[in-house]
Amino acid sequence: MRRSDVPTPALLVDIDILDRNIALMRERAAGLGVKLRPHAKAHKCVEIAQRIMAAGAIGISCATIGEAEAMALGGIGGILVTAPLVSPDALARLGRLLLRHADIAVVADHPASVAQLATAAGAAGRRLDVVVDVDVGMGRTGCLDIADAVALARQVAGAPALNYVGIQAYWGNLQQVSPFAERARLIGVQVDRVRAVIAALESASLPPAIVTGGGTGSHGIDAATGLFTEIQPGSYLFMDSCYGTISISENDNPFAPSLFVAATVVSANKPGRVVVNAGWKAFAADSGKPVALRGGPPGADFRFMGDEHGALDFPGEGGPAHGATIEFLTSHCDPTVNLYSVFHVVRGEAVVDVWPIRARY
Amino acid sequence: MRRSDVPTPALLVDIDILDRNIALMRERAAGLGVKLRPHAKAHKCVEIAQRIMAAGAIGISCATIGEAEAMALGGIGGILVTAPLVSPDALARLGRLLLRHADIAVVADHPASVAQLATAAGAAGRRLDVVVDVDVGMGRTGCLDIADAVALARQVAGAPALNYVGIQAYWGNLQQVSPFAERARLIGVQVDRVRAVIAALESASLPPAIVTGGGTGSHGIDAATGLFTEIQPGSYLFMDSCYGTISISENDNPFAPSLFVAATVVSANKPGRVVVNAGWKAFAADSGKPVALRGGPPGADFRFMGDEHGALDFPGEGGPAHGATIEFLTSHCDPTVNLYSVFHVVRGEAVVDVWPIRARY
Repeated sequence: MRRSDVPTPALLVDIDILDRNIALMRERAAGLGVKLRPHAKAHKCVEIAQRIMAAGAIGISCATIGEAEAMALGGIGGILVTAPLVSPDALARLGRLLLRHADIAVVADHPASVAQLATAAGAAGRRLDVVVDVDVGMGRTGCLDIADAVALARQVAGAPALNYVGIQAYWGNLQQVSPFAERARLIGVQVDRVRAVIAALESASLPPAIVTGGGTGSHGIDAATGLFTEIQPGSYLFMDSCYGTISISENDNPFAPSLFVAATVVSANKPGRVVVNAGWKAFAADSGKPVALRGGPPGADFRFMGDEHGALDFPGEGGPAHGATIEFLTSHCDPTVNLYSVFHVVRGEAVVDVWPIRARY
Repeated sequence: MRRSDVPTPALLVDIDILDRNIALMRERAAGLGVKLRPHAKAHKCVEIAQRIMAAGAIGISCATIGEAEAMALGGIGGILVTAPLVSPDALARLGRLLLRHADIAVVADHPASVAQLATAAGAAGRRLDVVVDVDVGMGRTGCLDIADAVALARQVAGAPALNYVGIQAYWGNLQQVSPFAERARLIGVQVDRVRAVIAALESASLPPAIVTGGGTGSHGIDAATGLFTEIQPGSYLFMDSCYGTISISENDNPFAPSLFVAATVVSANKPGRVVVNAGWKAFAADSGKPVALRGGPPGADFRFMGDEHGALDFPGEGGPAHGATIEFLTSHCDPTVNLYSVFHVVRGEAVVDVWPIRARY
């Protein structure tokens, strides 16, 4: 199958660019002295996780129990579930993964969770590594107060069937702050907090063996603090137009877009406008609109035209033909990937593989 | 399984409210003298299509060839694909459906499409009903000029293996114009255009047997014109907060929400705030934010907190417990349904069935 023959709308990943992004993050992590546990929330794909592991990652981070199941069944180890598992369903599924000897750790941010995790691990006859999730200004999950984090670590350390292994400190709200210097300044405020949490844990004889966090936009800043033992970036694999507009190093964005949505021109009845078969079901709309690349006319501007359609308005006459394929850069990679069942893997003009996207709701 | 035990995030549909919405639209269509071909783009679900057909619909509208495949394989007849099928992939799949004797019609808005459809139908040894798609001010698909519509109808009528059956005139851009009187006024402008198209076709001895269009927000206005033979509403099945704020009849919205997203409180460390496991991957974000209903604290306001999380901010102390289930009204039903693999079908506190959602990309 050729790249232009993929049934549309379709998600394409350029395998060579993906592999370069994987290699580049490995080099950066090695240079910064941190381990890599890249996040599966971006791809939900065992085949991509296997490439990341082959490039030396210590494991894969997961946002949901479903992602953890997919990774474990795909033979991936070093799984860390980075959001609290709270519902009876999620805990039962965690218990089944433990019974099957999955190599999995989880975060917790609440005493009730620790008790539930101990019950689940005990029932499976396994010991479960638990990371204490600390709120570092994002206001999403994590212990709010240092004393709470220390108390939770103590509870984990004392719980049957649980191992206390460290802390998670993730500032998702700061990943795309621009300019870079302002991002670094805001992260610096939270780094002081991480340092204080670590000091308090050390004082309580609970030094964290693992300090995990970091995303594509912050990983360099985070790693340079010397506090983090590992980082969890995900979007670096694919990039998108939001990440494309910011610096990831001081004055540079070393990662290149590898992810594209291919769509077909299904109506071309008006000069200066074509309509493609890709709308809100083909592109996540939380972070703006996609950008036309290959096949798109110069100066084209995308407009969402409902669930299944988008318009491209462009200056002048001509433009893409009825039936033409146009590829788009997405505005937000993770939730766009979540809209597709597979990646069509391309190298130049060829489709070289098809990789399933798993654990969609 | 009880309603509160559904693995979250989950899509719930209240079967009794759904059935009332189905029955109400049947009554309205009968009263207005139009046939019903409700749109599968809202549900992508054979089980729901079967209920609609059992309630007297003449068929099911589909936005994509994938939806048409799902409906045909589910035994649904009277399929109309309401967007042009243009790519070689889509035409090949249409050909396979014709070979399998699917009861399917399609729209076209371009001479090249008519030729392709004739080739596909001829190769399958079938005659294919074709509806000429007319742009009525939306600027998405459809013939722009009346002369083009007449020429396309003539081309279809003269093509081997094709039957010319009528026209489609859909104003998706006017479905939610508020107040109702302004919606009716704007539709009136386009109705004049539909009347002119029909007159031109009649003058060319190509009177349309089918005039199809109409959505949840416009169907009453459309049907009252006497021009439409059938309507294609979809959102009436589920409703959402966008449709909930507008009148669907003159001063009334007779349809009730049947669709909810259930999520779990996974973090509750700050007074006045809980965090649930539902974000951009659980709710379509193109039309605003969801609204907390069952289990939500009074006065709660939702904030997206990334791909897998949302925060509910609420006044006062207390609030939902760690681990509690909260149900949400979505802001836009169609693309939210598209985020899930199944409907959990509920009646009161019981889960009475699980229905697959098909043909996601």
